[in-house]
Amino acid sequence: MGMVVQKYGGSSLADAAGVKRVAQRIVATKRAGHDVVVVVSAMGDTTDELRDLAEQVTPLPPPRELDMLLTAGERISMALVAMAIAQLGPRARSFTGSQAGVITDSVHGRAKIIDISPGRIEQAVAEGDIAIVAGFQGVSQDTKDVTTLGRGASDTTAVALAAALGAEVCEIYSDVDGVFTADPRIVPAARKLDRISTEEMLEMAASGAKILHVRCVEYARRHDMPVHVRSSFSQKEGTWIIPESSGGAVEQAIIAGVAHDRSEAKVTVVGVPDKVGEAARIFEALAAAEINIDMVVQNVSAAATSRTDISFTLPRTDGQTAMSALARIQEVVGYDQLLYDDQIGKVSLIGAGMRSHPGITAKFFAALAGGGVNISMISTSEIRISVVVDEAQVDDAVRATHTAFDLDSDEVEAVVYGGTGR
Amino acid sequence: MGMVVQKYGGSSLADAAGVKRVAQRIVATKRAGHDVVVVVSAMGDTTDELRDLAEQVTPLPPPRELDMLLTAGERISMALVAMAIAQLGPRARSFTGSQAGVITDSVHGRAKIIDISPGRIEQAVAEGDIAIVAGFQGVSQDTKDVTTLGRGASDTTAVALAAALGAEVCEIYSDVDGVFTADPRIVPAARKLDRISTEEMLEMAASGAKILHVRCVEYARRHDMPVHVRSSFSQKEGTWIIPESSGGAVEQAIIAGVAHDRSEAKVTVVGVPDKVGEAARIFEALAAAEINIDMVVQNVSAAATSRTDISFTLPRTDGQTAMSALARIQEVVGYDQLLYDDQIGKVSLIGAGMRSHPGITAKFFAALAGGGVNISMISTSEIRISVVVDEAQVDDAVRATHTAFDLDSDEVEAVVYGGTGR
Repeated sequence: MGMVVQKYGGSSLADAAGVKRVAQRIVATKRAGHDVVVVVSAMGDTTDELRDLAEQVTPLPPPRELDMLLTAGERISMALVAMAIAQLGPRARSFTGSQAGVITDSVHGRAKIIDISPGRIEQAVAEGDIAIVAGFQGVSQDTKDVTTLGRGASDTTAVALAAALGAEVCEIYSDVDGVFTADPRIVPAARKLDRISTEEMLEMAASGAKILHVRCVEYARRHDMPVHVRSSFSQKEGTWIIPESSGGAVEQAIIAGVAHDRSEAKVTVVGVPDKVGEAARIFEALAAAEINIDMVVQNVSAAATSRTDISFTLPRTDGQTAMSALARIQEVVGYDQLLYDDQIGKVSLIGAGMRSHPGITAKFFAALAGGGVNISMISTSEIRISVVVDEAQVDDAVRATHTAFDLDSDEVEAVVYGGTGR
Repeated sequence: MGMVVQKYGGSSLADAAGVKRVAQRIVATKRAGHDVVVVVSAMGDTTDELRDLAEQVTPLPPPRELDMLLTAGERISMALVAMAIAQLGPRARSFTGSQAGVITDSVHGRAKIIDISPGRIEQAVAEGDIAIVAGFQGVSQDTKDVTTLGRGASDTTAVALAAALGAEVCEIYSDVDGVFTADPRIVPAARKLDRISTEEMLEMAASGAKILHVRCVEYARRHDMPVHVRSSFSQKEGTWIIPESSGGAVEQAIIAGVAHDRSEAKVTVVGVPDKVGEAARIFEALAAAEINIDMVVQNVSAAATSRTDISFTLPRTDGQTAMSALARIQEVVGYDQLLYDDQIGKVSLIGAGMRSHPGITAKFFAALAGGGVNISMISTSEIRISVVVDEAQVDDAVRATHTAFDLDSDEVEAVVYGGTGR
């Protein structure tokens, strides 16, 4: 049997009892004949507690030192997991990101993995040991400083390590049972998906489904790594995220699910002169301020004025920066007015079947209309349709869409659809 | 001006306010023109809390993993200290023991420093930065695993680093004002020493004075490193520990101080056949059990029986192991009986002046007799006389000795004479 990489999030490692429960699951996998490499997050709220401690010292901690501080969290959990395993019999050794060969760039707080050189992990596994690796962290190629990969990045560590080690599967354990057709807190009849293609999962994650981070899914897609998202609190199968190379989710439904996102805001630049290059100026200014734009809509120019409105969505957390950047170029661009609306939500319908099934868009919009939901922006990809609606109408939009596409299950599961730690 | 290495213990870094106070002192030293390298312990009770966490997971944590766990403590404090410094202006960079080049053997939990290769520290200092180094930890030469140096070893890290960097002085900060002529909790009139020779300090530490660990003082003596023990809670000068090469404590008094130790027990092997090699068998058995023996006394053999009694002292924590080891060799050695007494204490008088002033021993014993204290064992070095007494008489013995040698101060300082963190 091949190698399994397992990742356990902070909710699975909330306390000593959680650590021991996780250790039993790891040992069972080992005893079933697999080589096992485990990636862990910090226990429970440790990372937030460390952030609080930093805030008590300074309002603006130097990023290098904040990374040094936060990486203490995984150090604690990985050592405890290794101890708990050893108590059950098998040998286990813990490794920091640096020791595991997770090489990153030098952007503290959101470093990107450049390379994985897992020599020490391979050696430990070859010697029959279980390797426990700190997620979320690495070491910078240039300065040999400790780096962190950003929120949710332990999942990315796990998938990247699984790819570098040639693992059979990367199992991501959290406190939810898998990927659902919609957030069960909004749609109690949402169904757990048995399988979903990496491509669809990528659109789900990018559209607000919090179960996996976009970067992690991108990594899995690029390296053709099957990912199994499941709960550490039960023995049930979770959701398999299947790379396209393995036929994707072969027997898949036309529609995988409905995702929503309440984290964005909408900016409208009113009265932009309809001349070549004006839109470019606007988006150059936003890029210079390092703002990630999501959806963009440009109205058809009013013939009388030769002026147009440009609307775009962006993370609410970037709202102030974006508005300031745009205010500074008002004279140069010559627009009339800036509008800002953070009472919006995005609802997305995702499914690889859209490619071959016409009429999905019409059915989606009809469902929204039937639910009394107004659409204010639209964007599409090959396998996704997203609309921006009033924040207050997000739940209605999700429910109406879920029902219209026959996604409702007969059984209703009581599951909290939350984050996966990091 | 030269380089200063400062070490701050856990009591100085109890919380965010402590971290900021320490940072101000570090920055003041930097602004006075010194290059500054700082060694930190874990904050407050962090190390004990991490040990508790390990105990919740397993009664017998693998030493490698326990070291990995405990080193999280210094990681947290060093990052916070670096942040607090940066907030005040100067640049600061934190380094783990491994990054600082603290190379050790592979004995987890009590590793010994083999070498220091402080290339990264030197580079940081050359670039004008303040380097913050994790005390208590290193990396093993053979396996590249994270190691810890044992309780109190941050002081050793500081002195070793100071020696490797060619620092002018190593300042050890804690919550006490310096080295006292006796424990002020027992002798309220104890005086703070302005200076003491490394040699005397070594005897003080080995005799139970808890202000510095023996290993740290040994390191300072071997490398001729002046050490300044002082409080992080005041600006007062503390006690300078002066190497013999610099003339020791030139104007020193005949007697440096009175130390005591309640951590030992006494074992008596009754009726040992008075033959060549019997004592050797006993101490070989103890050595094989890794027991550190302190004082040893062999009675004059009773002519009638050709049998003798051998008594020795050892750490109470080793009592059970020692008794078991000796019980196993009773038949081979042919002794009559084993006695164990842990209601003892050791009182030591220390002073380099003993070498040239006869009569110190007589005066010491007279003082004890005057205080009504019975002596049960005696041992001496060139600059120390130690006696074992009833545990209940330790305080009386210390007070009587302190007074007899005119060590009492006129002022009484309210100081707690405690540990220095680690």
